[in-house]
Amino acid sequence: MAVALAVDIGGTKFEAAVVDDSGEIDGRVRVDSTGARNGEELFGRLAGIIETIDLAGVDVCGVGSGGPMRPNGEQVSPLNIAVWRDFPLRSRLAALTGLATFVDNDAKALALGEGWLGAAVGVSNYIAMVVSTGVGGGIVLDGRLLDGAAGNAGHIGHLVVEPEGTELPGHVRGVLEAEASGIAIAHRTGAPPSEASADERRRAGTMVGRAVGSVANLLDLQLAVVAGSVALGYGDDFFAAAQLECDRVARLQHSVGTQIVAAGLAERGPLIGAAAVGFAGSKHGARSR
Amino acid sequence: MAVALAVDIGGTKFEAAVVDDSGEIDGRVRVDSTGARNGEELFGRLAGIIETIDLAGVDVCGVGSGGPMRPNGEQVSPLNIAVWRDFPLRSRLAALTGLATFVDNDAKALALGEGWLGAAVGVSNYIAMVVSTGVGGGIVLDGRLLDGAAGNAGHIGHLVVEPEGTELPGHVRGVLEAEASGIAIAHRTGAPPSEASADERRRAGTMVGRAVGSVANLLDLQLAVVAGSVALGYGDDFFAAAQLECDRVARLQHSVGTQIVAAGLAERGPLIGAAAVGFAGSKHGARSR
Repeated sequence: MAVALAVDIGGTKFEAAVVDDSGEIDGRVRVDSTGARNGEELFGRLAGIIETIDLAGVDVCGVGSGGPMRPNGEQVSPLNIAVWRDFPLRSRLAALTGLATFVDNDAKALALGEGWLGAAVGVSNYIAMVVSTGVGGGIVLDGRLLDGAAGNAGHIGHLVVEPEGTELPGHVRGVLEAEASGIAIAHRTGAPPSEASADERRRAGTMVGRAVGSVANLLDLQLAVVAGSVALGYGDDFFAAAQLECDRVARLQHSVGTQIVAAGLAERGPLIGAAAVGFAGSKHGARSR
Repeated sequence: MAVALAVDIGGTKFEAAVVDDSGEIDGRVRVDSTGARNGEELFGRLAGIIETIDLAGVDVCGVGSGGPMRPNGEQVSPLNIAVWRDFPLRSRLAALTGLATFVDNDAKALALGEGWLGAAVGVSNYIAMVVSTGVGGGIVLDGRLLDGAAGNAGHIGHLVVEPEGTELPGHVRGVLEAEASGIAIAHRTGAPPSEASADERRRAGTMVGRAVGSVANLLDLQLAVVAGSVALGYGDDFFAAAQLECDRVARLQHSVGTQIVAAGLAERGPLIGAAAVGFAGSKHGARSR
């Protein structure tokens, strides 16, 4: 049995656990990741929880982290972790644990995890998305996770969906993340996303459905697995509108019938995804591009 | 030296030649593909030109064809060849020539050809596009041609670029093909695309640039190679507008600097692409999905 140390690097918390190759999660530990004065202090917190885990019998370390990052996660600069800019996360974790360590974007990790144990089991072509504070994604095509030149493939949040749409600072006008993310909805409505009206919830779903329909047409896939607090929190309002718009856009022989479904792993997603990054890395090695 | 019989299946002509693994084209023959009464008569024309070619020393047959098609081109239904609907092109050509035969979409063939000998040599992540009567494309990512579930990955013509845009029969409103294709421009202007004003030419470029920028963001690639009579015929008006809009949209660390360039193979593209399909097939086998 193969066993991974799974590490989830988020803007509000770090989490780690041991995950075996059946997906069993054991010894889960977490620590607050906010308010650190510098990168070393923050890494110290992560090291502190990892050192509580018994690594005997662990084969590999897999990490899902917010991006952007350099190829293979050698340096990470998570948008919502200001004290880590080009932080050498992979090598520091490898030195700390003595394990072969593989780092990937958290949305790509989610894609691997959903294909392994979630809502995309047995599917060779799909996109996994997170619609939360931001909008991210990872794509599996022809049975392989897409990397792209620098490892950032899947960034569906930056597809233009509404050219005359919302002007959100730091974003190109009308990209999906400027329309359907938590930050965008707060910007549009002046209130927390959780207080958005049914119309706003449906609007977010419509924008996601348009992006998914376009991607289904472009890439010849028929499944989008969606996680994230905005999507899951909005629930039926969001998913029904997303499916309706996707049905309108995905009309080609190869895209008609594309389904938008909630992610299957719920709160296990980040750790299962991180473990999947580790197992995939130990099987295939890091990408060499 | 490996040698391919290259076959290009187009709506106005069929073309065939022998292409060696340095890209040398020899014995080029062509026949009109319009006005056939039925599929057998049309295949007879294709067989007629192929039978004039000396196949001694030829290792493989590669075919680029208009789509849609079923996986591996077992049945093709080219939009602009009405007498072929689910025509078993691959098996018929294999039986005719006695060669291992591989069929793929003509835009995917172009992508392979441009990566082999055209404007994408040495590049592992790019999209090749045809902006002509319709809009098609093929994507190479992580050094591999993307297929998708049924072999249709790359269909950039069906990305939504202008939701409030043109209503073109048979198209979802505002997809790229409904904005920038020859048919769309004729529909918008009521005149042949070649007579379009500078504004229309720039508008077509802008729409293509928006789609390319979105795809660069989504897939982490930085090069679009564009062929086709509309793009190449419109020339600088088109390409300058496309680049300007792409620069506006592709602003992420991984997408900034994305270039839109004319295809490098010019009128050799279809045969070089078809040969590349053959060589890729004999190296990797047909996809197994």
